[in-house]
Amino acid sequence: MNPSEAILNRQAKLSAALRQANLPALVLNPGPSLTYLTGLHFHLSERPVLVIFQPDQAPVIILPQLEKAKLDGLSYSMQAFPYGEDPATWQSVVRQGLQQAELLSGSVGIEPRQLRVLELRLLEGAAPELQFASGDTVVAGLRMSKDSAELTAMRRAAEIAQNALKATLPMIKAGLTERTIAAELTLQLLRAGSAGEMPFSPIVSTGPNSANPHAFPSERKLAEGDLLVIDWGAAYDGYFSDITRTFAIGKVGEEEQRIHQIVQQANAAGRAVGKPGAACEAVDQAARSVIEAAGYGVYFTHRTGHGLGMEGHEDPYMRSGNRQLLQVGMTYTVEPGIYLTGRNGVRIEDDMVITPEGCESLTDLPRELIYLS
Amino acid sequence: MNPSEAILNRQAKLSAALRQANLPALVLNPGPSLTYLTGLHFHLSERPVLVIFQPDQAPVIILPQLEKAKLDGLSYSMQAFPYGEDPATWQSVVRQGLQQAELLSGSVGIEPRQLRVLELRLLEGAAPELQFASGDTVVAGLRMSKDSAELTAMRRAAEIAQNALKATLPMIKAGLTERTIAAELTLQLLRAGSAGEMPFSPIVSTGPNSANPHAFPSERKLAEGDLLVIDWGAAYDGYFSDITRTFAIGKVGEEEQRIHQIVQQANAAGRAVGKPGAACEAVDQAARSVIEAAGYGVYFTHRTGHGLGMEGHEDPYMRSGNRQLLQVGMTYTVEPGIYLTGRNGVRIEDDMVITPEGCESLTDLPRELIYLS
Repeated sequence: MNPSEAILNRQAKLSAALRQANLPALVLNPGPSLTYLTGLHFHLSERPVLVIFQPDQAPVIILPQLEKAKLDGLSYSMQAFPYGEDPATWQSVVRQGLQQAELLSGSVGIEPRQLRVLELRLLEGAAPELQFASGDTVVAGLRMSKDSAELTAMRRAAEIAQNALKATLPMIKAGLTERTIAAELTLQLLRAGSAGEMPFSPIVSTGPNSANPHAFPSERKLAEGDLLVIDWGAAYDGYFSDITRTFAIGKVGEEEQRIHQIVQQANAAGRAVGKPGAACEAVDQAARSVIEAAGYGVYFTHRTGHGLGMEGHEDPYMRSGNRQLLQVGMTYTVEPGIYLTGRNGVRIEDDMVITPEGCESLTDLPRELIYLS
Repeated sequence: MNPSEAILNRQAKLSAALRQANLPALVLNPGPSLTYLTGLHFHLSERPVLVIFQPDQAPVIILPQLEKAKLDGLSYSMQAFPYGEDPATWQSVVRQGLQQAELLSGSVGIEPRQLRVLELRLLEGAAPELQFASGDTVVAGLRMSKDSAELTAMRRAAEIAQNALKATLPMIKAGLTERTIAAELTLQLLRAGSAGEMPFSPIVSTGPNSANPHAFPSERKLAEGDLLVIDWGAAYDGYFSDITRTFAIGKVGEEEQRIHQIVQQANAAGRAVGKPGAACEAVDQAARSVIEAAGYGVYFTHRTGHGLGMEGHEDPYMRSGNRQLLQVGMTYTVEPGIYLTGRNGVRIEDDMVITPEGCESLTDLPRELIYLS
């Protein structure tokens, strides 16, 4: 299947999904779902872009005049409503687009995590009788199960990330700051073949900072006795990887060694249970119960994982209470952690894909505690 | 002024601005304004973060439990309402935060370009009587005029970007793809000291692609006779630069040389008029009239520039009809262009700051047409 066939195929699947959800239309703004369904890339900027999808009709796009060249040579038809630089004129152009789609009333699906109040107010102003419903499950339903071209890109993104870390490890030693290590890893990611628009900037957190799961790299210097948590990912052809490993700098305390061992067991348990038909909450439960049994449950402060693909975090989520069933082609992370506030933290994260037989890890860097310097 | 004094100073200015705008509160989600007013960094993710600012009261923050460690060691007080991993529980925590702020009705300011439908629906659900107004001018009014620490960061971001381009130019030659050149420039940006979270990935567009102002780097190979447009920027300490230069590969046509000369004159004219009290539209008019007089007005398809700082595009905008007056410390781009669809394009972009005497360019790379290879 060539890329433009893939796009048409996705649009056909969307038509069917909209009919099934009884949604007459889906309205998207720039983001991964728009790219997935159109092959087009737009920045999310102060100039709004809106695309209206309806079953078995050519999409309607409302966009800045200066972006119109992106539609040249499209392999499928799209009706364009371009607007100029004066924001006062935008609402009437949005109305023209909605009129073309015969969509001035009724209910349309949107993505609440992507659509901004900017676009919502424009749509509301252009068509006061229009109503908005979450179209999240419609789009996520399409995007969650990756096809073979998508999986090829994800495997490559995992490989690039692993190669970049291997190239970075030899320079890591006590005395370097978190920022220095993060900058070197970013450089190595690019050199290994990552696209510049990465899923996120690498997290490099040391000692007490490693007890903050979402730390930003600081000027703190790596010291003997620290745990070092590195959480990084690469981008390839629009798809992401997301890996975490924890290292020891010189001799670390007994409890640090123990919590690493527990998290490593939890990671293995979480990775083991994925298969078609298993619930997402079962993955969380498998990892969490290891940590709870060891008495550290209260220090595992987040869900066990998240879907991964064109977004760093996407459906499905591996959390307690999520009864969604895993299906072939779904990709997600398993990343249990233990965080001892003010002291040290550990996290070990792998990227998984559901296969007909069970699941497979796209990432295979050693998971045991590795001593650096 | 140390960083935490700067934050308190900004919060005090916000109090005054809210009173003047008759807005009882401002509610922000993660983004540059939140960082500007709190010093805190959060990713914009599927887990919402909301901060409520009210005149002369400690801010209230609603955030995921796993982000709470970011509040440790804050130099000012903030009341935190953390929530767990189950989205079904979030609305009631948002309500607790609004109750604490005594903000269950009345009008609050938001940022329509930043707040998503996700957060809007949570707020609406938590406090059905609350009304939402744009707080854009309140926050932009604070952020537009940069203080000396901000300008120091912007000068450094400009310097880093210029050094990175200088390091990249020697490798550019016919036969290389746009993507290869963009990857090398990204590498050099990091090596020169840019932070990993850049304002945008470099635009490298060649030949016909250069006629698309917002092209993404493609597999097209640079060829003799092409114009080459490079639009890139660096990040330093949370502040951005944004520069464009156009190059010639070997011998280019006479019209290509002519449009480059016109754009260079338009850039100079646009850079010349900035001063305290001049209107933003005057900057646009100065650059545009040069291109119109040369008969290419219809090929200059965008505004002349945009504000620059913590965002790649921010207030104030240099466009026709914008009567906003420039003030000391305001920073913006001047970037006229001519785009001959299907053939070639030219853009020349500099970063400006308004000074008491007039204005100054933060960027000074040569602007004439430089022939490569």
